[in-house]
Formats: sequence, structure tokens, C-alpha cells
Amino acid sequence: MKNFLSINDVNDPMALAQEALAFKDDPIQHDLHKGKKVGFVFFNPSLRTRLSSQIAAENLGANAIVLNIGKDGWALEFEDEVVMNSDKPEHIKEAAGVLGRYFDVIGIRTFPGLTSREDDYQEKMIQAFRENTDKPILSLESSTVHPLQSLADLVTIQEHWKENRRPKVVLSWAPHVKALPQAVANSFAQWMNASDVEFSITHPEGYDLATEFVGDAKVSYDQKSALADADFVYVKNWSSYYDYGKVLTQDPSWTISNGHLEVTNQAKVMHCLPVRRGVVIKDEVLDGPQAIHLDQSENRIFAAQAVLNRLLT
Amino acid sequence: MKNFLSINDVNDPMALAQEALAFKDDPIQHDLHKGKKVGFVFFNPSLRTRLSSQIAAENLGANAIVLNIGKDGWALEFEDEVVMNSDKPEHIKEAAGVLGRYFDVIGIRTFPGLTSREDDYQEKMIQAFRENTDKPILSLESSTVHPLQSLADLVTIQEHWKENRRPKVVLSWAPHVKALPQAVANSFAQWMNASDVEFSITHPEGYDLATEFVGDAKVSYDQKSALADADFVYVKNWSSYYDYGKVLTQDPSWTISNGHLEVTNQAKVMHCLPVRRGVVIKDEVLDGPQAIHLDQSENRIFAAQAVLNRLLT
Amino acid sequence: MKNFLSINDVNDPMALAQEALAFKDDPIQHDLHKGKKVGFVFFNPSLRTRLSSQIAAENLGANAIVLNIGKDGWALEFEDEVVMNSDKPEHIKEAAGVLGRYFDVIGIRTFPGLTSREDDYQEKMIQAFRENTDKPILSLESSTVHPLQSLADLVTIQEHWKENRRPKVVLSWAPHVKALPQAVANSFAQWMNASDVEFSITHPEGYDLATEFVGDAKVSYDQKSALADADFVYVKNWSSYYDYGKVLTQDPSWTISNGHLEVTNQAKVMHCLPVRRGVVIKDEVLDGPQAIHLDQSENRIFAAQAVLNRLLT
Repeated sequence: MKNFLSINDVNDPMALAQEALAFKDDPIQHDLHKGKKVGFVFFNPSLRTRLSSQIAAENLGANAIVLNIGKDGWALEFEDEVVMNSDKPEHIKEAAGVLGRYFDVIGIRTFPGLTSREDDYQEKMIQAFRENTDKPILSLESSTVHPLQSLADLVTIQEHWKENRRPKVVLSWAPHVKALPQAVANSFAQWMNASDVEFSITHPEGYDLATEFVGDAKVSYDQKSALADADFVYVKNWSSYYDYGKVLTQDPSWTISNGHLEVTNQAKVMHCLPVRRGVVIKDEVLDGPQAIHLDQSENRIFAAQAVLNRLLT
Repeated sequence: MKNFLSINDVNDPMALAQEALAFKDDPIQHDLHKGKKVGFVFFNPSLRTRLSSQIAAENLGANAIVLNIGKDGWALEFEDEVVMNSDKPEHIKEAAGVLGRYFDVIGIRTFPGLTSREDDYQEKMIQAFRENTDKPILSLESSTVHPLQSLADLVTIQEHWKENRRPKVVLSWAPHVKALPQAVANSFAQWMNASDVEFSITHPEGYDLATEFVGDAKVSYDQKSALADADFVYVKNWSSYYDYGKVLTQDPSWTISNGHLEVTNQAKVMHCLPVRRGVVIKDEVLDGPQAIHLDQSENRIFAAQAVLNRLLT
Repeated sequence: MKNFLSINDVNDPMALAQEALAFKDDPIQHDLHKGKKVGFVFFNPSLRTRLSSQIAAENLGANAIVLNIGKDGWALEFEDEVVMNSDKPEHIKEAAGVLGRYFDVIGIRTFPGLTSREDDYQEKMIQAFRENTDKPILSLESSTVHPLQSLADLVTIQEHWKENRRPKVVLSWAPHVKALPQAVANSFAQWMNASDVEFSITHPEGYDLATEFVGDAKVSYDQKSALADADFVYVKNWSSYYDYGKVLTQDPSWTISNGHLEVTNQAKVMHCLPVRRGVVIKDEVLDGPQAIHLDQSENRIFAAQAVLNRLLT
């Protein structure tokens, strides 16, 4: 595996998830990549991703070094052949070039601006790093996808699913107080479409994801019928893709409650965190036996460990 | 030892101090807790505590991971069953729950607001973390106590005391330019009351500490008589507990000078740092042979190492 | 080697550079300084220096701990016998004293103010740390010199120079959009004067460096004649030393292009980064075969490793 920027870098998502579960059984393997260096570059803030990735690298014996780049901390020029007399003191060619000399893997986090769909979906930052170093690039969530989260989600589904049939997995949009990226939803859809599950998506009209991410998933605007017989319900807000970055509704009937779960097959309820209780999911669900959001969060470590192990090998 | 939130978690403070001194003799013991993970969460800034705790964890072979949470960095909701549509994106249940999945020990630093005594003395933050994870919680200084500092203080007293009698230890209030918490004073009083020393406190009227911390210590408003025959003088400012958070006096006659020490038994002079020279203690004392404040500071490492060793075992 | 504050701490720069190249061949030597502690104190921001020094320490088995001190993060008092009732809560005596108890080597980065030449060239911060601890002090760039960069530069020259004669090395001033310190230029001049190379400096009138740094180097205001037959061209902007901290010209004819290199001996082109493309050096040079700036950047690791190895031994 050369890079880990999306599901497209993974031939065998189910096998990769199994590798993550093997690391969960036996996490401390310091001799595997002793002395290797992993750089985590955060252009946007992070809590879970930073901690879980750092722990994963250290479990493998690698040194994890974090760069928290504030908005004005490291202004990079991306244009070619420009006279750099503005407020950007360093070019991506040198930035990526130097990090490539320092690290065996370079992790990058960068959020979308949510104002220009074209800009965000070009993934300029990630692509520019990839083009300017030959070292592996690891997405720590980019403008459009969050593959480490999706792998952890798949790991969690595999961990909880013991029956001899394909589980029914539903991605259910939920309200939120502000506009969020589509990255987690896009990415979850990609990974579910590539996994051995029956996958569908439900959301209000206007919240359709880009077709490249929806793939063959069934899409419904009727949450109740979509949830019927679900084994896993992934709850997540995102802002509109077609009316880009807009909040079209905050309809509280989409907030997942125990009532919503009655039509399901005692579905496990998933969320990538942070979750606004009472807005996205009711307390009764998060505090009940069907919630597995903390398992997802824990599995972020082992997902990152499996990916880093491949990138470092 | 389940948690380390105050002296109440420690059955044997003198023995714990001896364990710290044993680590001082032989600090690098990487095999003791190899690969374990310690998270240090700073809701308030830290220098000595952060460095000494991180060094302590690494001496034990553990990975130390620091989270510096700014005031607006990780706004947590503490109320139950609230609809989280305000500016707090994460609930303590998930915050503590996730950290509990990531770390073997969770260190927390949180300062008092010094406006509501009731709020501060409830230790809401520390208690909320304790209630929402089953992993050990380590106080890195809370609103009302600073037990790692107090243990380091006890270690330093044991290290310097070679006579065959109980040393006389005096906690002496000192002036300061701004209102400081009672945490260091409260905690030092608790630890001295639990140790094999003769302990008394001296401060101007109005600066009495809460009775639960004063315990059986003798209290005097007359500094000179209190200092008579002292073997150790612990100098520290705190703001008023009863007139909560107020600075009632900045009387410079309480600033410790060589003159003050004449009535003592060549007392060693202690301070937890940072110390404002000339305000709290005169230069002549800090630069003289009786000052042991740098020893206290160094012993912070081994105090933390002894505590982490117990919490990780 | 007691400290590493400038070339004056190094008896044998060429040998030290060879030690760095030996580490480049075999960087991971965890047993050399296992469990030692290196503190990196950044009073000013850093990217390359922080990463390369941290990697160097970890390659040696030491624990690297970084303190990023913002402008208002740790205000230190430097005056003796002052009553500390202002906004500076800690004295350098305690700051350096405590760090000396915590670390085996203390790295310090501090930039010049560029307003008072006298203040900057006194190196007050570095000197104060040196005077208040007996632990080795490592310069991570100070007001007037950047010896880790210069050592990496020497390493890079040694790595690229295969002929049996002394290489001709030219330090060529370049324009910039703002006033920069003289530190890199001063330091490079010192190291070249102490190495087995033929060294000269070229810059516009008014940009002469202090004589103590120029030493016996030939100085010319005519860039073209200075570049003739050069084997290495080190390109760097600095602000005026004599008209202190001023930008006297931004003459673009000094920007290094392929045209400038025609008179050289196919010179390798060096820069310490970050480099403003099109202002300091043209893209055609940086993207061409003569640029070795990324090698310099990579060699920062091994320069730091050789220095830390000596300081920790």
C-alpha cells in the first residue's frame, strides 16, 4: 500500500480490518517498526485522530511527531513559478520535500472551507503533498473523506457482527447546529460499498451525497422505512453537497431515539464523535446497550496501527 | 491505589515518599511499564508539572501523550440530559469515555475560577472524569489540591532530614501581586498532617484555610513566634478562603528574608515555584544555602514516578 | 564539548561533520543515550529545527521534550535583586535551574529583536541560561548565530565534494521582502573560515557583516566576479548590521538564476530554508540539478545527532 488517502488505496478492506483486530488482541509490538518516524501534520485541530494515531505509531515502535499548524502557522504557497513576495514564506515543494526527508510516513489533516465545492473536492493540499514527496501520505481526514474513521467503523462492525449473513447497515443523516463536512459520510459510504454488507443511506431531500460516493447504495428520504431491520445504524450530520455547505433543515424528527430503533433488528448505533447529545442522538440511546460509539473510538487506534504497519512495511 | 486525587487516596504517604526516593537513585526503568499509555490533559497551562510528569512516565517505559486544551479548545458539557445545541460540542461522558479507552492513566489539570467557592470546592471537572471512566485519574493540580506537589515536598523533607526527631515544619503565608488558589497550601497541610512531622501554619488574619485541610495543625497569626525553631519553612501565597478569592493584604513584612530565619533552627526554605523574588522570598534567601526549592522541583519527577508506578501496577 | 553555542565550542568542525555523516549511514542507535532527557525550549517558532533535533535525540535513544513558549507564555525576569511585582512571574535563576534538574541537555531558540544591535549581540537569553545551570546548552539558533544549521551546511558540502582540492564557497546575499537576522550568514561565515575551504562573501554595499564573523574571508560588492569558479553558492538574505536591522535594497538582480550560475564551476546552490521562490532564488535553480537545499535540510538531523551525541557523552 503506497498511500492511504481513501478506499481506492486499499485492495482488501475486509482483510485490513482483520489486521486491525489482530493488533487489538496484541497491540504492543515495538520491534515491528522500531525507530521509524511518523509525522502528523495537523492543518486543522484534532483530538481523537491525533491521540489514536500517535498511540498506533508508538505501539509499532515508531516515533510519532506532531505538528500542530495553526491557521497562520505555516502559510504555504501552492502556485508554480510565482514570485513569493506575499505573506506565504514557504512553497509546498520545499514543505513536502523536507517532510519527506524527515519522515517515513506523513499524515495530513486538512478540512474543507465549505464555500467552494470545486476547491474542496479537488483535495489540493493532500494532492500537493503527494506530488512533492515520494514518501507515503496518510490521510488524517481531508476535505472529502476520512478513511481512518471508516476503517475503524468497519472494524467495529466486524467485531460486533457474529451472524452468518450480511449485516444491514444504514447511514442515517441527523440534525446539527452548524454546517459540517461530508467527509465522514462520503467515506463511510465508500467503505460500506466495498465491504460485505447490505448498505443504504437515508436523509432529507437536498442532502444527497455525490454520486461517486453513493455508488450502488439504496437512498431513501423516508428514515423510518430505511431503518427497518437495520443491524447497524450510523448516525451522522453533514451539510448539503448540491447546495454546497448549506444547512437546509434541522428537523428534530431525524434525531435518533429509542423509538426510532424499534423497527430495527436491535441495531447497534454508531457515531464518529464528537456527538451533540439530544441533537444528533438522544441520551437514552447513547447511554443504552445498543450504542457502540466508544468501541468505534477505541478501534481508531487499531485501524491506524494496521494502516501504519502496511505503509511502513 | 485506584486514583491519585488527594492524600485520601494514599494509605502510606511516608512509604510512597520512600518509593519516590528509590526512583531517584535509579530512575530509568523502562521495562516496568513498557508500552503503557499515560494521557496528560491540561485544561490550564503547566510547565513543571507537565515536564516532570512526562519524564516520570517515560522513565517507566510508558508513552506520555500531552493534550494542551486551551480555554476554547475543548468545551465540555457536564449537565445530564441537556440538548447540546450551544457552544459545547462534546459531553464529559464521551470525553472521559474515549480517554479511558486510550490511556492506562489519565492525568487532569484544572484550576479554580476563584469566584465561586462552592463551584471550585466541588471539583466538578475531576469528579466528572472519575465518574465517567474506570481508568485511574491522576490529579495534576485541581481547584483545591495539588497532591503531586505535596508528595514531592514530603520527599524533599525526608531527603533533607537526618535527625532522630520529628522535624518542625511551618507553612508561612507570603504576599503576592495577584490572587492565587489555595490548592498548594491546602494540599501541603493535608500531607503534613498525615506525616511524621510537627506541623503549624502562620498567616495574617483572614487567610485561614478550610478546616478540613487545617486539621489538627496549630495556626498562628504571629509569623515570628510561629517560625521559632522551625526546621522547614514552606513559603506560599494563597488568596482568602472565607472572603473567597480575595487579596486582603500584601503586607511586605511577611516576605521571607534572612532576618526571618534567625529564629529558626537554620530552617530549610521551601517553595513550589514559580516564585516572585523580593515579593514572596528575598533573593538573599533563595540564593543562600537554606533554600531547597530546586530540590523540590527536581523531586517532582520522582514523586510522579512513584505515583504512576502504583497507578499502572 | 561542554556547550554548543557557536563554532567557538568546537575544536574540530571537519571531524564533527564526519561524525554527522557516520550517523547518516546508521542513524538508529537507541542504546547510545537510552533514557537521557533533552529539553527543547522554543522562545520563537521553529519547524525544521524542532523536527530535526527531536528526531536526532530519538535516534540516540533519548527522550525529546519540547516546550513551545509563546511570547506571553513564560515571561522571565533577568535582572538581579529586583522586586518581581510586574508581569514576569519567574526569574531566569529558577527557570534555568529547574530545566537543569530536568534535562541532560537544554536546547534554546531565541530570535533577535532587530531594533537594538547591542541587545541582540549580547545574546542575553543564551548567556543567562548558561550562567544559571551547569547542564550543556545547545543553541537552536540565537540572535546572532545558528550553529546547527552551519554544521549541517558543512556536512552537505563534505557530502557533495569529491575532488582533491579545496572547494570555492561563496556566500551570496539575496533580496527578501522583510528584515531578517544576520544569524545564518554570521554563523556560516564562521564555520567556513574554520573549515578547509576557500571562502568569500558577496553582498551590496551596506550589508557588511560584523568583522568578527567575516574574519579573513574575501568580501566583494560585485556578485558576478565573486561567483566566478564557485563550487558552492550559499544564497541568503540578511538585514544590515551597521544600519542595524534595516532593509537597504531589494535589488532583484541579486536573485540567483541559472544565468548567475554560468560563471561558476557548475556550483551547487544552497539555502537554509524557508526560501521565497522568485525572490531569493529562481524556480529554475531550485527545481534544477544544482540545488542541494533539501540535502541541507535532511542533514540537519545528523548534524544535531552528532552534536547531541557529544553533549550527552
